[in-house]
Amino acid sequence: MLDSSGPGEDRRPTTEGDPKTMKLVLDCDPGVDDAVAVMLALASPEVELLGLSTVFGNAPVDVTTRNARTLLRAGGRPDLPVAKGAHGPLVGRFGGGVPFIHGKDGLGDGNVARASEDDRPPDLSAVELLRREVLAAPGEVTLLAVGPLTNIALFARVHPEAARQVARVVVMGGNALSPGNITPGAEANIHNDPEAADIVMGFDWPVAMVGLDVTDGIVLGPAHLDAIGSGGTPAHDLLARAVPLYRQFYKDFNDIDGVAAHDPAALALLLVPDLFDTEDWPIRVELSGIGRGKTWPQTRRRPTPPPGWEGRPPVQVATGARSEAVADFIADRIAKARFGT
Amino acid sequence: MLDSSGPGEDRRPTTEGDPKTMKLVLDCDPGVDDAVAVMLALASPEVELLGLSTVFGNAPVDVTTRNARTLLRAGGRPDLPVAKGAHGPLVGRFGGGVPFIHGKDGLGDGNVARASEDDRPPDLSAVELLRREVLAAPGEVTLLAVGPLTNIALFARVHPEAARQVARVVVMGGNALSPGNITPGAEANIHNDPEAADIVMGFDWPVAMVGLDVTDGIVLGPAHLDAIGSGGTPAHDLLARAVPLYRQFYKDFNDIDGVAAHDPAALALLLVPDLFDTEDWPIRVELSGIGRGKTWPQTRRRPTPPPGWEGRPPVQVATGARSEAVADFIADRIAKARFGT
Ligand SMILES: [Ca+2]
Ligand SMILES: [Ca+2]
Repeated sequence: MLDSSGPGEDRRPTTEGDPKTMKLVLDCDPGVDDAVAVMLALASPEVELLGLSTVFGNAPVDVTTRNARTLLRAGGRPDLPVAKGAHGPLVGRFGGGVPFIHGKDGLGDGNVARASEDDRPPDLSAVELLRREVLAAPGEVTLLAVGPLTNIALFARVHPEAARQVARVVVMGGNALSPGNITPGAEANIHNDPEAADIVMGFDWPVAMVGLDVTDGIVLGPAHLDAIGSGGTPAHDLLARAVPLYRQFYKDFNDIDGVAAHDPAALALLLVPDLFDTEDWPIRVELSGIGRGKTWPQTRRRPTPPPGWEGRPPVQVATGARSEAVADFIADRIAKARFGT
Repeated sequence: MLDSSGPGEDRRPTTEGDPKTMKLVLDCDPGVDDAVAVMLALASPEVELLGLSTVFGNAPVDVTTRNARTLLRAGGRPDLPVAKGAHGPLVGRFGGGVPFIHGKDGLGDGNVARASEDDRPPDLSAVELLRREVLAAPGEVTLLAVGPLTNIALFARVHPEAARQVARVVVMGGNALSPGNITPGAEANIHNDPEAADIVMGFDWPVAMVGLDVTDGIVLGPAHLDAIGSGGTPAHDLLARAVPLYRQFYKDFNDIDGVAAHDPAALALLLVPDLFDTEDWPIRVELSGIGRGKTWPQTRRRPTPPPGWEGRPPVQVATGARSEAVADFIADRIAKARFGT
């Protein structure tokens, strides 16, 4: 199925002694931190990346889809499928992205050499890619969702039997005990499609939520960013161009020299789980009011569940992390990877 | 204006060398922790308690009003006014209290010797008591609100000019960064009247919010409760009878041996402010959805306020406390007080 550029770079699974133990579909809206997450996946020997599905979010879906192709090309895996997904949320309309954070091009407006918009035939839709990959390896495929959860919710509603074969859904999004970022209540991914998030957090599959409670503190500082940017491959060059605008946002509005590694932190939960603390809490998502998009954990024991939380499954919520160790891990792994060169 | 039982017990302000520097009206819904707060006020030489206003909440307002009289009688100040306030929230209906926490009688169903329902003529309404006391000492009166904020909001709306003469409003209620208690989103006092809370947090007066962020951790443990219960006056005896049911709730549903000192903690912010950390954050209150009653702080700097937070004044939010020291302070002061005996 996949091209290989040679035995040394072959990332395909083998039947014997295969180090790739984690089959992964990455659903994303690149997005600067999405770009870091994709490169972290490609840099990880234990990850078998099956493809990218894309969604609106940091930019419109046509932009994030093109960016997904750009990332795979720069990362040495242009052979992997990219499946375009939702252009807007289940309910309501998409507000148009955050160009002051991720750039108009979604990759920091840093003149990244982008894939052309039509350099390959369209792949499957996001939902169909998810179905295909999950049914090809029932019980083995992890979905890592680092954008609005529209595609993941649609997959659960369109193909519930296939969706129940997912090994695990890991979400970058939400905020259990910490403030939101796009509003005082809500984190941006969940705010972009609260109804989808409420479906995903309530469906019959194991979900982990890696939200602002931990990702706000997992900061790639100047030394990390220098290392990532100077690895000498096209992937490293891309990140060096993509990150500065995002970094400026953090400097101007969060008073930190560095960037929060939101999306790669969610992948890190899979790669270095011992660096995280988690709690199993049922989650509902606020669908109305000024808190729309807030993820509400039920943290307290009560004689009966509070109204609205009845029958909700536990979600594995990341509540703490050895932040510096996680940031070191992400930066080190990306900096040292050769990305097929 | 006030009766005095003798020079030694005279709690009235004097013109010279007056230790009572804080004129206080306590708006409450007793309530077991309200009882502790009232006794702490009566035990505090720096507090000049001007009266109690009452509100629905832990029990119906007829019950909380009778309890307020009971508390003043046991505390040696039957002369102080009790002003009955709202029987339900601004919008919607009162659900009926939490008898499994505070008892059907609002004082722990411990056979407290209660004031009769008609042992004195009715005082002013809560709103009129607030107006009278504030206008009698413009700029000097602090309102300590430890129940639903209905009376305080009505005061602001009925007599805005008088309300602007309030020195400070200190609220026990809400949760900035920690989970709710009555629902996953909301703290009970705010949940009982979210619209009133949104008015109070947005009015043109200095507000401090002492919420679950600190009060959940300010626990009166077995030694504290023993000391409080064995002081030997009618006030101590009352507390010894009132606390056990409340304590059982904490044992059964919070796995702690002791009780959270919610209401007295708010008074402690006034008495021992150095034991608290605070942040100045604008607050909106959620009025809809499953998070109804959540207090939303705007914690992040942004180019413009998020929609809904425009023009909101900063609220002094208690975010941390030297919890043990606060609990020791509360218990020690009450245990040692003589309450006019
Ligand atoms: Ca993303
Ligand atoms: Ca109270």
